[in-house]
Amino acid sequence: MAKKPKLLSDLFHDTLKDVYFAEKKILVTLPKMSKAAQSKELKAAFVKHERETKGHVKRLEQVFKIFGKKAQAKKCEAIMGITKEGAEIMTEFKGMPALDAGLAACAQAVEHYEISRYGTLKTWAEELGMSDAASLLDDTLKEEKATDVALTSLAKTVVNVAAEADL
Amino acid sequence: MAKKPKLLSDLFHDTLKDVYFAEKKILVTLPKMSKAAQSKELKAAFVKHERETKGHVKRLEQVFKIFGKKAQAKKCEAIMGITKEGAEIMTEFKGMPALDAGLAACAQAVEHYEISRYGTLKTWAEELGMSDAASLLDDTLKEEKATDVALTSLAKTVVNVAAEADL
Repeated sequence: MAKKPKLLSDLFHDTLKDVYFAEKKILVTLPKMSKAAQSKELKAAFVKHERETKGHVKRLEQVFKIFGKKAQAKKCEAIMGITKEGAEIMTEFKGMPALDAGLAACAQAVEHYEISRYGTLKTWAEELGMSDAASLLDDTLKEEKATDVALTSLAKTVVNVAAEADL
Repeated sequence: MAKKPKLLSDLFHDTLKDVYFAEKKILVTLPKMSKAAQSKELKAAFVKHERETKGHVKRLEQVFKIFGKKAQAKKCEAIMGITKEGAEIMTEFKGMPALDAGLAACAQAVEHYEISRYGTLKTWAEELGMSDAASLLDDTLKEEKATDVALTSLAKTVVNVAAEADL
């Protein structure tokens, strides 16, 4: 029997499971990051993003439904790697002046991974003629981009504190 | 003896080693990706980015020099995870219509990781008063952003091909 061709719909399905895993991993990581953060503003940013992430998980479940598949997670090696780096920062910089700068940088790496994945999924959903799914994915994409912008500005504040300790 | 405080300069040094590792890993991954790609345009984009990546490695070595440290790589778990996902795509979608769409998506995930890291390193270099280093990091940041834009447009072309096979 000939091998079944792997199509764009298969790639979409695989990547959807990958991002679903990533969002759930982020959901358990954010409370650890907000607990570890020293600045009130960074803590608040992580709490806010945790709330948004719950919405992203729900949207992905709607996308699975539109696609006619049950919501299912598949281990995402990229998010495992990025969050492992974050865990190292939390251990190595615990109680240190540069901790918050490290945490904000890690959160931005997470955001950028998500921005790339949601951008890709949105393009694929459009190509596959699922405009409702594309619209849901775009809603999350916009929130991830806004979070990255907020973190960029916050990173400049926390890094000032860290840099002062360096002098 | 009291534990030496971990400062922004330590975080900068750690992240520089992390990105140095990532660039070297990308340098060995890109030839595999250009070999695997089916479309001429995607192959060419990977070859071009390989050439640029060699320049990024050299720039990082200059940044290490400005910082007064020898160039050294430290295993970057994030890039290991992202490239592992790319290797899975190359195996699972070999010879399939959706292969190029998967490869372009993987390359965009790599670009976004780098964009976040170079953005962070540039901000930290400025705070640490190393304007020459910040300028070198910004040169690479601009190239990574341009590569992401080129891949976004290319992704739309290759995804069309894949989507047609889906119909």
